[in-house]
Amino acid sequence: MLITFTDFGVEGPYLGQMRVALAQAAPMVPVVELVSDAPAFRPKSAARLLAALVNRLPAGSVVIAVVDPGVGSGRLALVLRADGRYFVGPDNGLLDGVAAGATECAWFEITWRPDSLSNSFHGRDLFAPVAGALAIDPARLAEFARELTPPPLAWEPDLAEVIYVDGYGNLITGLQAANFDEATVFRIGGQSIRHGKTFSAVVEGGLLWYRNSMNLVEVAENCGSAANRLGAKIGGGIMRLGPDMA
Amino acid sequence: MLITFTDFGVEGPYLGQMRVALAQAAPMVPVVELVSDAPAFRPKSAARLLAALVNRLPAGSVVIAVVDPGVGSGRLALVLRADGRYFVGPDNGLLDGVAAGATECAWFEITWRPDSLSNSFHGRDLFAPVAGALAIDPARLAEFARELTPPPLAWEPDLAEVIYVDGYGNLITGLQAANFDEATVFRIGGQSIRHGKTFSAVVEGGLLWYRNSMNLVEVAENCGSAANRLGAKIGGGIMRLGPDMA
Amino acid sequence: MLITFTDFGVEGPYLGQMRVALAQAAPMVPVVELVSDAPAFRPKSAARLLAALVNRLPAGSVVIAVVDPGVGSGRLALVLRADGRYFVGPDNGLLDGVAAGATECAWFEITWRPDSLSNSFHGRDLFAPVAGALAIDPARLAEFARELTPPPLAWEPDLAEVIYVDGYGNLITGLQAANFDEATVFRIGGQSIRHGKTFSAVVEGGLLWYRNSMNLVEVAENCGSAANRLGAKIGGGIMRLGPDMA
Repeated sequence: MLITFTDFGVEGPYLGQMRVALAQAAPMVPVVELVSDAPAFRPKSAARLLAALVNRLPAGSVVIAVVDPGVGSGRLALVLRADGRYFVGPDNGLLDGVAAGATECAWFEITWRPDSLSNSFHGRDLFAPVAGALAIDPARLAEFARELTPPPLAWEPDLAEVIYVDGYGNLITGLQAANFDEATVFRIGGQSIRHGKTFSAVVEGGLLWYRNSMNLVEVAENCGSAANRLGAKIGGGIMRLGPDMA
Repeated sequence: MLITFTDFGVEGPYLGQMRVALAQAAPMVPVVELVSDAPAFRPKSAARLLAALVNRLPAGSVVIAVVDPGVGSGRLALVLRADGRYFVGPDNGLLDGVAAGATECAWFEITWRPDSLSNSFHGRDLFAPVAGALAIDPARLAEFARELTPPPLAWEPDLAEVIYVDGYGNLITGLQAANFDEATVFRIGGQSIRHGKTFSAVVEGGLLWYRNSMNLVEVAENCGSAANRLGAKIGGGIMRLGPDMA
Repeated sequence: MLITFTDFGVEGPYLGQMRVALAQAAPMVPVVELVSDAPAFRPKSAARLLAALVNRLPAGSVVIAVVDPGVGSGRLALVLRADGRYFVGPDNGLLDGVAAGATECAWFEITWRPDSLSNSFHGRDLFAPVAGALAIDPARLAEFARELTPPPLAWEPDLAEVIYVDGYGNLITGLQAANFDEATVFRIGGQSIRHGKTFSAVVEGGLLWYRNSMNLVEVAENCGSAANRLGAKIGGGIMRLGPDMA
């Protein structure tokens, strides 16, 4: 299965060109668009989101991950093999969370280049053909990439920031929910936020934090937008109060 | 065919996770996303939209319908069989319009639970596996659901409200166009709106109502946004004037 | 391969109904959505975007192109055969850029009509069945269309306007990049904009123009939104300064 994780936007002409490129590179392989609006210009936030989603992806998946403000510059094009899945993307930290969470991994630099390579759309021109070839036959990796000495990773399990604001206005943070017990109180925009198991644990309009379906700490307003209520954006901080400080 | 009707948003990480879950549950079954931005928090409005779309869905389709503000609470998970199609979703009225419009229908409670069930994403964890199994073999329904006594339906054919605002700014209402003749004048936001067969029946910038492609009353501004012009939102009322009152 | 190029919006109920119609018309043919938010009400701008994307579409593709403010009026429904690809859409200039760029082309009027044709959704009711039939067997074209005398085309290679604003806020123009050398300075909203090969050629927050991945002149702010910065919209002008006038 080919899986895309990009900041191309669900609107516009980029995702569609990617779909065409993948349909040509690997005609019989199903393509699933996992995320198409990962935080643009913010590979580090996007890396948290990708890392939180990776465990549910089928074994053997080939994932194209593109949040790539440095496209066209000297950055490397990488393949990461991690626990039997392949990740194709730029060398800007986007894949670090996947590597940090993997039991086995190896890094490769893509040395192959297409006949025609645009300066601004390596997703279509470089990553899609490579990912398509890998989806058809992973053994071909050595033909277009060479193994790298694993780079030192500087990955902290928890990032105390909002990494994504979803369409409901819920705030997905870079905090692993497993690291915080239910007595924990968080603070965003001057408001204290207590734990709730489900939205309906609080009244309509009430705020809560909970372990979301990706096992991250998420902040929501029941039947409302926490983003509007708290004036929160991607990159904004979340503070942990002790249970005694709330 | 598997069909999704959700409020997950076309952006964000939810639709993608649903796609992955469906690709795993029913690998060879085509998936079509019918609506992915049904009105969040408003199962009753969403129910009107679903009911208006159902007649064109292929016989034997399995439809996952999720507008589910009560996810994680005690609400039941349902399967509705209606005229040979299957609908999988929450017990909050979302499926009532489908049942009300069907010649034959039966309700079932999903009793099966996955090993791991998140509190906030039953679409991925519960509804997708059930729908996938049904799409492969509907006879398996009895394995994971038990028939319910049909609940009493309180479904009015017409709802005098805007149920959806589309990307052009057109206002889709919950009124069946067949119930109103072409002399009918409607009123929204203090403006009278007369019938037109097509957009080009009025001048650019003119308002009109027409029978839309889902057979509902829809209000539009030719080459403009009726939503902006009339300050109309989902849930806002539409009033019928007699032909003599306009 | 079936390819859609529409202004239906990625949100809302239209694209989904189109997907259902195509899955029924041509069940085994892969469908790729190329663009779903082409400029509504602006077939001329959309025509530029389509023309810029066409060369990468696979040989033998059938493209449904719908930006159709005149839907339901007397405009013709067309098939354009251009260099072995088929384009199905309205008679409003949307396909002119494809024809102008083709080595061989022929125009046909669709004479077939479905049993039930809505006034507002010919994409679903008329174009999808025709495109599906063509995708399965192009030889069937004569069954539902008759050849037209080629209309005179009034197509200029360059349109000095913004034709699309993408999700990053980049401004895609109707100018062919090959017609401008790197010393060219453009002007939008009172600001002069010089050439850069890649985003990283300018500082963060800097403006640049470049040959985009569709070979059009595009204006961007590195790591920012040129649309916000310059107050630019679809249809807004772009002026060329001589290198000596910047």
